[in-house]
Amino acid sequence: MLAAMLIREATLHDWPRMWAFMEGIVRAGETFSWDRDTTESQAKQMWFPKPPGRTFVAIDAGGTILGTANSVRNHRGGAAHISSASFMVDPARSGQGVGRALGEHVLKQARKDNFRAMQFNAVVETNTRAVALWRSLGFEVMTTLPAGFHHPAHGYVGLHIMHRKL
Amino acid sequence: MLAAMLIREATLHDWPRMWAFMEGIVRAGETFSWDRDTTESQAKQMWFPKPPGRTFVAIDAGGTILGTANSVRNHRGGAAHISSASFMVDPARSGQGVGRALGEHVLKQARKDNFRAMQFNAVVETNTRAVALWRSLGFEVMTTLPAGFHHPAHGYVGLHIMHRKL
Repeated sequence: MLAAMLIREATLHDWPRMWAFMEGIVRAGETFSWDRDTTESQAKQMWFPKPPGRTFVAIDAGGTILGTANSVRNHRGGAAHISSASFMVDPARSGQGVGRALGEHVLKQARKDNFRAMQFNAVVETNTRAVALWRSLGFEVMTTLPAGFHHPAHGYVGLHIMHRKL
Repeated sequence: MLAAMLIREATLHDWPRMWAFMEGIVRAGETFSWDRDTTESQAKQMWFPKPPGRTFVAIDAGGTILGTANSVRNHRGGAAHISSASFMVDPARSGQGVGRALGEHVLKQARKDNFRAMQFNAVVETNTRAVALWRSLGFEVMTTLPAGFHHPAHGYVGLHIMHRKL
């Protein structure tokens, strides 16, 4: 982890610097179950969910945005105690602990917000770094939807549903 | 199954007669992961998803609405081939095969729409009739989120994720 990484709530002012690396991740279509032609405006709307949803950025000492995450209620009503979250790290900053720091922060905030569990609905099984990271943060693969994801290079692969109690 | 049950796409004109029985189901909070104080306007917006989402009603020979269902894309991008669906049957029409007829219709339409799987994200385990119905229509319980649903009478119960290929 970078010595001086800070995680804070994102603002719309941060958006252009977030989208700068998010766009490539969305267009690649390898790890996110978003349409690859999602427009910037749609992406912004999805990435800044209404409260109690939250959006975070990880920044270094110079204020550069290294990665971003958001968290939402995964369900409502009787299942409103389950949260979910999504993460994108600038590929240029890969391997520096940004995803882990964001994951830990999101878990901590979800506990503060009185959620009792966190669920990831769609973790592409070929995204092995993410799967390993979430496992190391206490998530379990609850099930794998067979042929749940069509990967641009690998064809149909499994889609994990991951979960942990908070 | 009623001799003369018909299933067709719902229109906004049908809404007041749909909400007449849907409201009690939402307010009870026992089977749907919706906020129990969901307003009629929010409910209408959720129940009539944008295309490729669809909304159906089951009606009898006299035009009475017996139940309703909707179907949506459960994910986008590389997982856009997975659909999902929701069902509400008028409790006064329970046990007459309305849910089964709606289920069969939604599956058939999803195949026509080129979906490759259908996933139910939140089936309350105490809703045993629904669980049995979906099993009989080929769905499997892929996993059960422990304490995934807070039931007004039973407290925390499991929340099934069910799935079938199309």
